[in-house]
Amino acid sequence: MIVVIRAGATQDKIDEVIEEVRKLGYEPRPIVGELQTVIAAIGDERIHHTLESLRVLPQVESVLRVQKRYKLASRETRFENTVVDVDGVAIGGEEFVLMAGPCSVESEEQLLETARAVKAAGAKILRGGAYKPRTSPYEFQGLGREGLRLLQLAKAETGLKIITEVLSERDVAHVAEVADILQIGARNAQNFRLLVEAARTRKPILLKRGLSERIEEWLLAAEYILAEGNPSVLLCERGIRTFETWTRNTLDLSAVAIAKQESHLPVIVDPSQGCGRADLVRALSKGAVALGADGLLVEVHPLPAEALSDGQQQLDFRGFNTLVADIRPFTAAAGRRSP
Amino acid sequence: MIVVIRAGATQDKIDEVIEEVRKLGYEPRPIVGELQTVIAAIGDERIHHTLESLRVLPQVESVLRVQKRYKLASRETRFENTVVDVDGVAIGGEEFVLMAGPCSVESEEQLLETARAVKAAGAKILRGGAYKPRTSPYEFQGLGREGLRLLQLAKAETGLKIITEVLSERDVAHVAEVADILQIGARNAQNFRLLVEAARTRKPILLKRGLSERIEEWLLAAEYILAEGNPSVLLCERGIRTFETWTRNTLDLSAVAIAKQESHLPVIVDPSQGCGRADLVRALSKGAVALGADGLLVEVHPLPAEALSDGQQQLDFRGFNTLVADIRPFTAAAGRRSP
Amino acid sequence: MIVVIRAGATQDKIDEVIEEVRKLGYEPRPIVGELQTVIAAIGDERIHHTLESLRVLPQVESVLRVQKRYKLASRETRFENTVVDVDGVAIGGEEFVLMAGPCSVESEEQLLETARAVKAAGAKILRGGAYKPRTSPYEFQGLGREGLRLLQLAKAETGLKIITEVLSERDVAHVAEVADILQIGARNAQNFRLLVEAARTRKPILLKRGLSERIEEWLLAAEYILAEGNPSVLLCERGIRTFETWTRNTLDLSAVAIAKQESHLPVIVDPSQGCGRADLVRALSKGAVALGADGLLVEVHPLPAEALSDGQQQLDFRGFNTLVADIRPFTAAAGRRSP
Amino acid sequence: MIVVIRAGATQDKIDEVIEEVRKLGYEPRPIVGELQTVIAAIGDERIHHTLESLRVLPQVESVLRVQKRYKLASRETRFENTVVDVDGVAIGGEEFVLMAGPCSVESEEQLLETARAVKAAGAKILRGGAYKPRTSPYEFQGLGREGLRLLQLAKAETGLKIITEVLSERDVAHVAEVADILQIGARNAQNFRLLVEAARTRKPILLKRGLSERIEEWLLAAEYILAEGNPSVLLCERGIRTFETWTRNTLDLSAVAIAKQESHLPVIVDPSQGCGRADLVRALSKGAVALGADGLLVEVHPLPAEALSDGQQQLDFRGFNTLVADIRPFTAAAGRRSP
Repeated sequence: MIVVIRAGATQDKIDEVIEEVRKLGYEPRPIVGELQTVIAAIGDERIHHTLESLRVLPQVESVLRVQKRYKLASRETRFENTVVDVDGVAIGGEEFVLMAGPCSVESEEQLLETARAVKAAGAKILRGGAYKPRTSPYEFQGLGREGLRLLQLAKAETGLKIITEVLSERDVAHVAEVADILQIGARNAQNFRLLVEAARTRKPILLKRGLSERIEEWLLAAEYILAEGNPSVLLCERGIRTFETWTRNTLDLSAVAIAKQESHLPVIVDPSQGCGRADLVRALSKGAVALGADGLLVEVHPLPAEALSDGQQQLDFRGFNTLVADIRPFTAAAGRRSP
Repeated sequence: MIVVIRAGATQDKIDEVIEEVRKLGYEPRPIVGELQTVIAAIGDERIHHTLESLRVLPQVESVLRVQKRYKLASRETRFENTVVDVDGVAIGGEEFVLMAGPCSVESEEQLLETARAVKAAGAKILRGGAYKPRTSPYEFQGLGREGLRLLQLAKAETGLKIITEVLSERDVAHVAEVADILQIGARNAQNFRLLVEAARTRKPILLKRGLSERIEEWLLAAEYILAEGNPSVLLCERGIRTFETWTRNTLDLSAVAIAKQESHLPVIVDPSQGCGRADLVRALSKGAVALGADGLLVEVHPLPAEALSDGQQQLDFRGFNTLVADIRPFTAAAGRRSP
Repeated sequence: MIVVIRAGATQDKIDEVIEEVRKLGYEPRPIVGELQTVIAAIGDERIHHTLESLRVLPQVESVLRVQKRYKLASRETRFENTVVDVDGVAIGGEEFVLMAGPCSVESEEQLLETARAVKAAGAKILRGGAYKPRTSPYEFQGLGREGLRLLQLAKAETGLKIITEVLSERDVAHVAEVADILQIGARNAQNFRLLVEAARTRKPILLKRGLSERIEEWLLAAEYILAEGNPSVLLCERGIRTFETWTRNTLDLSAVAIAKQESHLPVIVDPSQGCGRADLVRALSKGAVALGADGLLVEVHPLPAEALSDGQQQLDFRGFNTLVADIRPFTAAAGRRSP
Repeated sequence: MIVVIRAGATQDKIDEVIEEVRKLGYEPRPIVGELQTVIAAIGDERIHHTLESLRVLPQVESVLRVQKRYKLASRETRFENTVVDVDGVAIGGEEFVLMAGPCSVESEEQLLETARAVKAAGAKILRGGAYKPRTSPYEFQGLGREGLRLLQLAKAETGLKIITEVLSERDVAHVAEVADILQIGARNAQNFRLLVEAARTRKPILLKRGLSERIEEWLLAAEYILAEGNPSVLLCERGIRTFETWTRNTLDLSAVAIAKQESHLPVIVDPSQGCGRADLVRALSKGAVALGADGLLVEVHPLPAEALSDGQQQLDFRGFNTLVADIRPFTAAAGRRSP
């Protein structure tokens, strides 16, 4: 870390900082500049006390981090791409993988019909929310265990793998009985206790980026899972919150490129949540492919206008088929095997 | 709700929307304007299906909500200020209430020393984190149950009430044994399962606003607690995430005025998290008083430079004493009883 | 417009609003709902007084706009894509157009060398800043008229068309003598007087989106130019300001798809400013193509590490050649003619 | 500056950076850490080339600034508060100063009536827009020179000083004939050519913070004026753009405290633009006083519901009188002389 001393600080005050740096476990190396002194603190920032607390001293102007805060998620630790095996479906390898299905599991008919349709179109993994985090307590909260039962049924019938969201530590065990991938939603992106509990199932975890989570924080959340000994993390960009009101969220496609460059983990894009409008999903999906994503998580519903949640962002079957056709030239351009 | 039809839509397409509005439980009232038709949908938006899903229809340009989504949190439901009773300490009444203590409980000495100091300065409630949500898994995660034991000790010795954060549904029961107020942190602001579990203890809940939570969403999160039959919610503004990098968060003091105007619930301000810099805490505290806050949640530590978490934003005892003196003229100006 | 009356308002108070709506030029149509009354105001919102001012009345809860605020920029007014003719180079047509060159014009050698390199790689238009808007007064402010002279020279030698930024109404005339496209930068995105002055030259205008400009506002800024009788507007997405600190700006590629859907104007992407890091420019360029952009504006410099401005985001010649090769499969996938 | 070298870089690659640092005018001081090497570059960052361009080198991970980028605006250069003299009205001194008047000058009657009312309530300075920057070209653009004539009339009658916005370099001279303070609006906050032109009149300049301008950038914009030899800068916080939609902007009151701490310049708050809702203006004004602001800029109109611009945020005369009464106890608490 670099501790920047205010211009004009007396030597006494500088020495006080040097002493404190040493006390907190670092070797201090003062550098006297033309206008200001800075103190380089030598030591591994991940095992020592952070020096940011020194900013309370009046003679300290700022404290700058040098080192990355994550390790296991970084390409510096593992250079090769991680390929996550989802019960036979490889994510992060050559194939571009489609996950699709309804926002919420609503009924057997709705789910099975959708499962068949998305499978026919090329999806390998079925999504569907049994537990739904809803902004208002008066909105549909999901079918819960009955939803899980229906997902199990769809899996048995179609052979699709299942991804579904887990909202609570208490649900992790029974959700993991059905799910091939445990989804951590944006609102729980820094619910670290849930991350750790999910990690312990050893199932692949799809970790959505929080609504206003910096990329560094997203990788640190992944680090919680990796540090628990579970290497199967899928990063999922799903739109961030900005000032823009045209879309519900602003899909940050640049984050895909950054995550692929900085980390070895696969990156999935959720274009449905990412914009909250069905009319943009196809265009954003093409962008996701071009930026290097390893797959998509797309909301598909037999009749979006009557969906119990987020109908405005769901594609109908025809829309999904078109999407699959639309992205094909782009997966080819990206050197990926098409779904 | 108001469904706005695109300019130039044919009558057939308009009729299709009218039919769908009826099907979803509303009475449709078309209004033909000079350029566009809109359909007013008569019905209680909180009990019917949302019409936002109609935006998937190509002839629909937008869907506008008319009604507020929360009810119990609103002054329309309860006009008088709610006064929350924390085991004899009234919050939301005439007195301006101070909650103070360390970011993390670190040791018996640290906690007791701080408890005595903040009590002497006028605080009624002791804060201290036993379970800490930390961005990185390599940072200090709190003392856990040992931290709770120390809080219990401090309470026994000083008579201060205790506020401490709960991170997990599984911890709610044993945290509630010690805590007089359960704190829900910003990262769990929309962890609805935790909100519901905490609500069921019937203890007062301090609900922090999420990092990028709109005020409407914050009140809807409160609504989860109120709808569970627990009326004792303290709203807490603690800074939002913006583009500004000078401070860790941008304390949104306007949210205090809005929350007080829109809701009957007490509003607390956390100036320490709110800016992440000790040198701004006093100024922000004065602002909080002026905007109508009912109390403060302030981080105080015997030796901030060596704190195990967030030292840069903690006041030492002298700093806290000065803060209390500083806000006194402002609490008087605001017609509040000083701490 | 829709004026939403607060629940519980008396008929007198409702009538007062109705009267005011009529007075401001609209025909009021009250709709009595289950819980609330709304007043639909019939009339063209673009020629009448806005009703948003009615929000000052205590019985008015909110005022909702129905109609779009822009007209000439909308596909409702002109359905076909606008193709802007830049002295023989068509933008917005079949060909994907590359504009490239240094952030700042620094010297004859630097500019000519770059002009030759980007032309050889396929660029049709040379960029280069003669007037530079710099955050600090102590930073390099551009060569001014001497920079324009060098651009003229480069144009004469290479036949490339010229795009360069104009910062001041006073410079418009002499910049327009050299430039084939006048660039309006993000900091002047709502400097309406400059927009109007630039529009009057009848030259094509590349209009960058402001740092925190909503898409609606961007199209309204374009409307200023179009309303002046100049149809040759190129919209340019160049990154918005968000909470993310990894990149200087967050390139909003979704805005490309939205702008193409909502407007008939060509859309250009500036990936260099868009992220502020050379190592992301190629990936973002591929994304821009996939999202439907009509061209790129890329910063290229012979020796970025020693550039006088924004070296960190500039590609060297080899980097630009690789970019051109990289995007080729994607322009093909997008059905565009490659540069 | 501190150049951080990637972990694992070879000595050759490190030497290359060292050489480049020297070439760009700094003295390089390498510090070999446990995991990474950093190079401290000794030299005045304000007169040398920035080293941020070195980030294009693959072995460079990041470049950290040490030094502040502004100088004249800083308390390090001038410790005492600057008091700006506006033709006999001192801003930044003991008295808390009120500037008030309509958003737009609309007519002689409207302006004079308002001028008399705000003077009677205690305002010293009359605001009123003659040139209006409007998001849409179809909105009222101000009366222009006729508006200036009316401001002159109001000044002659009431003796109030005048503040009015200038939008264009070309208007600076004739606006300065009438205005005692030239206002630079948020949309022109980084229109540096306008700042310089306004500075040259030697009139006091009220410099609004841009919609998404960081505090550092705001002070750097002030630096443009100060560097031109005009010391009379009033910083004005007027709300920033965030994700919140309850208010038009989020008034950043913490910026008031920061600006007062970091700079010697007076700070004014515009609560009207700051929230865009008349019902919050009084509360925010109290907050502004508590945070240390030196004055307010408030929009007042005889009949806000019928105002030609931004009626929703304007107070009527009674509202303004109440505001003045409301803030009085707080100006006293802040040790300021009441208006």
